[in-house]
Amino acid sequence: MNLSSLGEREVIDRIWEIVGKKENYDDCVYLDRGNYYQLITTDFVGEGTHFMDNWNARKIGRFFATINLSDIAAMGGEPEIFMASMFFPKRMDLGFLEDFMKGMLEILNDFNVPYKGGDLKESRIIGFSGIAIGKVEKERIMLRNAINKGEGVYITGELGKQAAGYFLWKNGIEEGADYILDVYPRIREGREISKIARACMDLSDGLASAVVFMRNANYGLDIDFNSLPIHKLAYEVSEDYDIPLEYLATGFGGEYELVYTSPKKIFGKEIGVVDEEIGIWKDGNKIKGEGYAHFSKALDKA
Amino acid sequence: MNLSSLGEREVIDRIWEIVGKKENYDDCVYLDRGNYYQLITTDFVGEGTHFMDNWNARKIGRFFATINLSDIAAMGGEPEIFMASMFFPKRMDLGFLEDFMKGMLEILNDFNVPYKGGDLKESRIIGFSGIAIGKVEKERIMLRNAINKGEGVYITGELGKQAAGYFLWKNGIEEGADYILDVYPRIREGREISKIARACMDLSDGLASAVVFMRNANYGLDIDFNSLPIHKLAYEVSEDYDIPLEYLATGFGGEYELVYTSPKKIFGKEIGVVDEEIGIWKDGNKIKGEGYAHFSKALDKA
Repeated sequence: MNLSSLGEREVIDRIWEIVGKKENYDDCVYLDRGNYYQLITTDFVGEGTHFMDNWNARKIGRFFATINLSDIAAMGGEPEIFMASMFFPKRMDLGFLEDFMKGMLEILNDFNVPYKGGDLKESRIIGFSGIAIGKVEKERIMLRNAINKGEGVYITGELGKQAAGYFLWKNGIEEGADYILDVYPRIREGREISKIARACMDLSDGLASAVVFMRNANYGLDIDFNSLPIHKLAYEVSEDYDIPLEYLATGFGGEYELVYTSPKKIFGKEIGVVDEEIGIWKDGNKIKGEGYAHFSKALDKA
Repeated sequence: MNLSSLGEREVIDRIWEIVGKKENYDDCVYLDRGNYYQLITTDFVGEGTHFMDNWNARKIGRFFATINLSDIAAMGGEPEIFMASMFFPKRMDLGFLEDFMKGMLEILNDFNVPYKGGDLKESRIIGFSGIAIGKVEKERIMLRNAINKGEGVYITGELGKQAAGYFLWKNGIEEGADYILDVYPRIREGREISKIARACMDLSDGLASAVVFMRNANYGLDIDFNSLPIHKLAYEVSEDYDIPLEYLATGFGGEYELVYTSPKKIFGKEIGVVDEEIGIWKDGNKIKGEGYAHFSKALDKA
């Protein structure tokens, strides 16, 4: 059986079955270090999956650092160091690597996170696997499922810009790529949110995936679609290419904004409430879909 | 300018130039945590560079865990946790992933290192990027250049088996692949060695690369080629395929044995001394070469 007939979540479940025990894993691994948790996360971006080799390398570098730091942000933490395992084909131009590094360092420098090295290898494709290590005070850690009934659901930023960029790019409009890569780590927001909120995750795979993960046995996110902050580009792309706005805003992801539940708003916009009516609802109907999953699509036309 | 015209070490130098400051980096990154150093390392293995997709997946998994833990061993440390960023094409069979995981876990279980998860993504090729995190008492850390004049140079295990395996495989003998993958992390040896020795590194890129890195302004490794413990397969391959034994034993690497300098032998075999006559010498002549460097060769026939 090949991976595409299973999909990402089943493959992950199978991996944990083989391991025999699911470890403390949320947006990051978290390790008890006495009075704080150490946070460790890794995120891979590869040619053909996340970018093409003719895209702007500086922006790819910014994107790469962002999506790694974003997992630290989602748990309320502060990043401490960054490392990267980088692999390239021989054919690659040194200028691409230099621009990539500059972009990556721009983001790291914004948060005073030192780059500590990593691994450099030859490969058939260009790929980067990042490691971000950070920390969070024990009482401020935010977990995906630490929701409480009656809390509001909030989101930083807007939805659907990256999805819109993807479909623009797929339709031959090169600037679409820049929208896909235009993300920023919500570290500062995450630090503030963690003073009050206990449940949070980042939108790597879309708001619909937050509904899947941010729940417990009885309660979950009850989201009103009409209250969502949707980027204007998503409206345009939805109309121009006849793609459902619901899919662009909730099913694709890549925004790397934070969704959190809290007794009160700290940043962003209220989009729902924690209760038994779990789902994203539009005019009384539940929107289908569970967010982005790998092995179902990619940039490559396979 | 493309990467193959520069070579791995120049590319790494260029990266540190862009970063502006070279961080504490040896076989691992090491971070001051009060009474100990935290050790962090990452190593990538990819299809076409380190293995082919028709090789034994369980052995690839063992190899992958080994080369990551090996960097902890080289600094005298104990591994604490392991993570992996894994990426696969859709076409990949679930059985390959399962066998890979089993092999990886065999090695981790030997050292009671829990697998803590990581990242799973779609990609054009199969690749794995590992993260090993460990610790070492401050007084027991071993660094590549912490050599002292007059110390002996020692090596665990034998040289050239993996190089021999590579050339067998290149010449159509499939079992060669098993020799390439047959490595084991020298964690227990590293712990013992670190009670006495201060300088150590692992042989990922060959003994000749240890000569490049294990030195200071005045002193380095003075190694007698005739004293080297060379695997019998290297002698056979050298003869059968007319490849210099010196290259197989010192220029290729992949053994993941430990080389260390010490006032006395702890494990393995004495192969030289720390003094001003830096190099690997055979019958009065210095052997050429500085060990394996990426972007100069790989499994792919490019």
